[in-house]
Amino acid sequence: MGSTFGHSFRLTTWGESHGAGIGVVVDGCPPRLPISEADLQHDLDRRRPGQSRLTTQRDEGDRAEILSGVFEGRTTGAPIAVLVRNGDARPAAYQHLKDLYRPSHADFTYDAKYGLRDWRGGGRASARETIGRVAAGAIARRLLAEVAGIEVLAWVSQVHDVYSSVDATAVTLEDVEAHPTRCPDPKAAKAMEAAIDTARRDGDSLGGIVSGVARCIPAGLGAPVFDRLEADLAKAMLSLPASKGFDIGSGFDAVNMTGRAHNDSFVPGPNGPQTATNRSGGVQGGISTGDDLTFRVAFKPTATIASLQDTVTIDNEVVTLEAKGRHDPCVLPRAVPMVEAMTLLVLADHWLRQQAVDVLPR
Amino acid sequence: MGSTFGHSFRLTTWGESHGAGIGVVVDGCPPRLPISEADLQHDLDRRRPGQSRLTTQRDEGDRAEILSGVFEGRTTGAPIAVLVRNGDARPAAYQHLKDLYRPSHADFTYDAKYGLRDWRGGGRASARETIGRVAAGAIARRLLAEVAGIEVLAWVSQVHDVYSSVDATAVTLEDVEAHPTRCPDPKAAKAMEAAIDTARRDGDSLGGIVSGVARCIPAGLGAPVFDRLEADLAKAMLSLPASKGFDIGSGFDAVNMTGRAHNDSFVPGPNGPQTATNRSGGVQGGISTGDDLTFRVAFKPTATIASLQDTVTIDNEVVTLEAKGRHDPCVLPRAVPMVEAMTLLVLADHWLRQQAVDVLPR
Amino acid sequence: MGSTFGHSFRLTTWGESHGAGIGVVVDGCPPRLPISEADLQHDLDRRRPGQSRLTTQRDEGDRAEILSGVFEGRTTGAPIAVLVRNGDARPAAYQHLKDLYRPSHADFTYDAKYGLRDWRGGGRASARETIGRVAAGAIARRLLAEVAGIEVLAWVSQVHDVYSSVDATAVTLEDVEAHPTRCPDPKAAKAMEAAIDTARRDGDSLGGIVSGVARCIPAGLGAPVFDRLEADLAKAMLSLPASKGFDIGSGFDAVNMTGRAHNDSFVPGPNGPQTATNRSGGVQGGISTGDDLTFRVAFKPTATIASLQDTVTIDNEVVTLEAKGRHDPCVLPRAVPMVEAMTLLVLADHWLRQQAVDVLPR
Amino acid sequence: MGSTFGHSFRLTTWGESHGAGIGVVVDGCPPRLPISEADLQHDLDRRRPGQSRLTTQRDEGDRAEILSGVFEGRTTGAPIAVLVRNGDARPAAYQHLKDLYRPSHADFTYDAKYGLRDWRGGGRASARETIGRVAAGAIARRLLAEVAGIEVLAWVSQVHDVYSSVDATAVTLEDVEAHPTRCPDPKAAKAMEAAIDTARRDGDSLGGIVSGVARCIPAGLGAPVFDRLEADLAKAMLSLPASKGFDIGSGFDAVNMTGRAHNDSFVPGPNGPQTATNRSGGVQGGISTGDDLTFRVAFKPTATIASLQDTVTIDNEVVTLEAKGRHDPCVLPRAVPMVEAMTLLVLADHWLRQQAVDVLPR
Repeated sequence: MGSTFGHSFRLTTWGESHGAGIGVVVDGCPPRLPISEADLQHDLDRRRPGQSRLTTQRDEGDRAEILSGVFEGRTTGAPIAVLVRNGDARPAAYQHLKDLYRPSHADFTYDAKYGLRDWRGGGRASARETIGRVAAGAIARRLLAEVAGIEVLAWVSQVHDVYSSVDATAVTLEDVEAHPTRCPDPKAAKAMEAAIDTARRDGDSLGGIVSGVARCIPAGLGAPVFDRLEADLAKAMLSLPASKGFDIGSGFDAVNMTGRAHNDSFVPGPNGPQTATNRSGGVQGGISTGDDLTFRVAFKPTATIASLQDTVTIDNEVVTLEAKGRHDPCVLPRAVPMVEAMTLLVLADHWLRQQAVDVLPR
Repeated sequence: MGSTFGHSFRLTTWGESHGAGIGVVVDGCPPRLPISEADLQHDLDRRRPGQSRLTTQRDEGDRAEILSGVFEGRTTGAPIAVLVRNGDARPAAYQHLKDLYRPSHADFTYDAKYGLRDWRGGGRASARETIGRVAAGAIARRLLAEVAGIEVLAWVSQVHDVYSSVDATAVTLEDVEAHPTRCPDPKAAKAMEAAIDTARRDGDSLGGIVSGVARCIPAGLGAPVFDRLEADLAKAMLSLPASKGFDIGSGFDAVNMTGRAHNDSFVPGPNGPQTATNRSGGVQGGISTGDDLTFRVAFKPTATIASLQDTVTIDNEVVTLEAKGRHDPCVLPRAVPMVEAMTLLVLADHWLRQQAVDVLPR
Repeated sequence: MGSTFGHSFRLTTWGESHGAGIGVVVDGCPPRLPISEADLQHDLDRRRPGQSRLTTQRDEGDRAEILSGVFEGRTTGAPIAVLVRNGDARPAAYQHLKDLYRPSHADFTYDAKYGLRDWRGGGRASARETIGRVAAGAIARRLLAEVAGIEVLAWVSQVHDVYSSVDATAVTLEDVEAHPTRCPDPKAAKAMEAAIDTARRDGDSLGGIVSGVARCIPAGLGAPVFDRLEADLAKAMLSLPASKGFDIGSGFDAVNMTGRAHNDSFVPGPNGPQTATNRSGGVQGGISTGDDLTFRVAFKPTATIASLQDTVTIDNEVVTLEAKGRHDPCVLPRAVPMVEAMTLLVLADHWLRQQAVDVLPR
Repeated sequence: MGSTFGHSFRLTTWGESHGAGIGVVVDGCPPRLPISEADLQHDLDRRRPGQSRLTTQRDEGDRAEILSGVFEGRTTGAPIAVLVRNGDARPAAYQHLKDLYRPSHADFTYDAKYGLRDWRGGGRASARETIGRVAAGAIARRLLAEVAGIEVLAWVSQVHDVYSSVDATAVTLEDVEAHPTRCPDPKAAKAMEAAIDTARRDGDSLGGIVSGVARCIPAGLGAPVFDRLEADLAKAMLSLPASKGFDIGSGFDAVNMTGRAHNDSFVPGPNGPQTATNRSGGVQGGISTGDDLTFRVAFKPTATIASLQDTVTIDNEVVTLEAKGRHDPCVLPRAVPMVEAMTLLVLADHWLRQQAVDVLPR
């Protein structure tokens, strides 16, 4: 359980790191939307391993096959199934992990929950699972662009102690993709790259922050009480591997402000009331204000490190874990398309849900 | 939509600040659980207004009536409906807010979403809605204590720039309740009280952080992928009024650590593998490790302040808003039982979900 | 669990026969719909006991109080909570049933499932629970009339061996309400009344069939695969107390026809293709054709009869059950508003769901 | 939307008749269940075309590939994805149907709902979609056998006007599989075969009834109010292609009985109260009694017939439809494994849901 996300735009992912493949079924995508495997591939290519020397060297083309729900180039309203076969699976490379628990991985908790586990490269807990999310996110992206002109963008805003300066209202996809770190501040990007290189050489790893923005959001998306836009975004982001925190708008910085300084004043705008500032991050009471959604996601340093670590076997005996296998010394660059995907999925879901609200004439 | 939370332990809240009352229906509570209105009242009293001079002076007894689902002192397995009538409702006091948008409140967004709004004291967007959550949380608390000995506790760890020092593994309910701020660090509590008093006198308001812990959690709760324990907690917390951020374990501080420093090493324990540290905050891959769950929730300063503010009417004209009415200059003390309730609801849900996993012999 | 119905128009009922009351929370009703307690009362009055000598003499006004979600006469988009207090509750009258199992009632199965039961008048299993459905159905009726001109009507078409002849395309509410049996065929109605009177005098009870029609349904409601319109109707009807069967269109009679005779031929209509016949009952592949929905629901004879019956105690000992208390010798007349309510709820749900399908231009 | 079924044992199907393939994702299957592709194949082979001359001659091996969720022969608790590639797809054979509406097929309603349709062999509306259900049902069968010894069996009890005589308490899988009609009454089976042969020669088709039984059901499965066992079964069965009705126990025959004759008397049994008769069909108040579940499903005659039929084009012009392609003159024999699958899915779901009820000591 737990592999389904969304109400009206709903996806179910499946698959393990070193099984037959990874996939997703998207149910609820409206009919008549033009979509192709190429649309999916664009985002999948930003997520896939081996893009640069900053990321894991696992060699996966991650080619998406659309198995259903699309006919003559357009969605039919039926579930869209997408399959990505695992290519460079090397289960044998993980045989030595079979009987021990890697620190800060999910080996122990899967055993505790299920009483057995697929130990091949993390199995279901692998970040390869996010392939399904990114493919579904690409469909959501196409839908939101078509129906509402909504645009979603994320970028790396911090790696370890390297901060960046980015204008969330103006940054573009080109800016983000200009550097393999996906930090659109060129100076910071270079420093991040250096920090990642150093960590790799040291057999260590680094955490960081992905920032995100959603633009051209109509006011009125989201729902009160439990399904607030920020609540669904928080769930979406904390469901990503290695994420440890989420905040929206002023976020944790709001704590140190007073109400007078923090409140977003309304001022008359050309099309009705608007706010002079956007400390709210584009939501009030769980519902979009029409301003940009702005938020941050904190990621921990990669748990797999190329150093010796003491750990314990399933029989409770001490053992030394030698890191082999392929991994990212810093997940941040590849987390960017995942954060975008989750944002797109939340927005597509709420956009479709809003249709049932807008039924009687205003 | 959006007023339902949980899968196996599921609640639906309803009600507005100045309507007939506030209520909740809890479906999925197992039968034969001893429960009484007094059990609910204990937590409701910690949430209700007028507890101390730090909170709003609205005079509400918030007496809970259990309307169904309990027979001869025990739950029957049928839905438990709880009703709290509004007592000190004064809709007329809000008449002057009918045609304008209060800064950083949900007036504008409700209008944008629904094309009309109940302007009496925030209507559905009022924090009075959380009465239903706290009542349901009290039922969850009783259940979790009974079936698993799980204990959940929250406290105020920061107000504005006043920090506290609290040992999450040892702090008790008595410590928390010892001071009206609900900060269990006595020195910090006094400083917080002074800061809140100053803010009130200045017609201003303050934000802060609530920290929480859940103890005696069995390993194995939660689910992979979307319904991770930390994802559901994140959604739960970001669904609380005025919350702006959430993190778990090392949280945003993980960003500045390296993998070698951050990883929780496994060591042999008397009952099997355990970790030497708990930077994960009690979860790996979305599933509980058996360690304490530890997390933080950031709250913004109260949007209602006792100062003049410029704003805009629904007709897009500038107007000065004079703050009247009753409000909390700092929501933190009353947010504590809300954070506990949401934690309890997430845990009860996942505890019941786990029953369907533990079906075949290990 | 199991007290929630619907996805986009969703209700949760609660309450027991002799507890504090019965209620419902409706979430998802669009905002700005004019609705009043009088709208609900009209349908509740058709359902309530004591309407005629054909029904139970329990004296309940069944006055509905709307507690939330309606402001200044219109829905706000927030959950609508409705409360009906139990008036003529007489739990003591059921004390003698506390330790035995009434034949063909749910006493035994509730004990088997929950390990305890509220024995006061059937508790949660009482048909009083349907008050919440009928109240929610009245809201759905108002919505469907407003947005789509949809009209739903049910009637008693058979009681025991008394058949009726009714034209489903033409029958009106006035026809149905003209006789306390709710059979719009006057001759059959009289015969049914006589049969019910005879059964009552004999200390016996009768079953029957409620037929239903939904008119002015736009083509395109419903969904393929699991959420077919007929599947959701089937679930809705089999969830009613005492119902034993459901069929749509030709239903069980289709079995004795051949394909050539059964197929609904398409013919050119003024507004596009239409069918010459409607054996499908207004659905194909789970989706509405635009023709009238026509269906039947079979109800068993009331389990409570005014005769001595042998049964068994909870301690597995034989005992004679003497029927006391108030009951309907035939549930059919009061089942009519229940069947209408369930039909309305299914249609409102699918109507709102369709909004998310009709998003891209055709 | 609408391609997902179940709460705790949940499946999502996808795929079209002449697309890449058909599949299903099962989420919620408990871990550690032994399962193999052979387990699935057994039921798929009973469903697949070309088994006998009574069924369509489309040549499909329907080989199931398990893509995820199974490791070293046992389920892991992760979603189980199953893929069946379409082999004998001949989209070109349907080109002549592209612009017209086949009588009593879903061509028209899909166009009405979605504004376009996959016209290749019915697309999503094809009964090939049930491959996913049958595969998931096979997993449910294995689970229910393992945890509760539950056994589910269905058979053809009527074809057109050929009735059969079958003892639901004693009939076996061998009896059912002994004849290609899947009618375990040998005399009736022969007559059915003859009737189907005649219909085929006449270019006509026949309907019928599938009866089902579930044995060794523990008392207490199901839920009150909306998720009654019979309600979920009704939905399950009416979601099958070509089904028009469902009843349970005495079903539509209950109408003609009186309460005195219909009630199931309790008598003392060796293990506690039991009933002398089972007119209820194994349920009371939505909850299983412990008796066999017995029910019937009515199927209409196949809409595709090998005769000329008048119909209308999408441009509302009369045209003659010449039946080509491959089809079943009577769907009943192949409906049997579908009915079994849906029963198994409902029971597995409720069995897992019951685990969250049985939490506190009785």
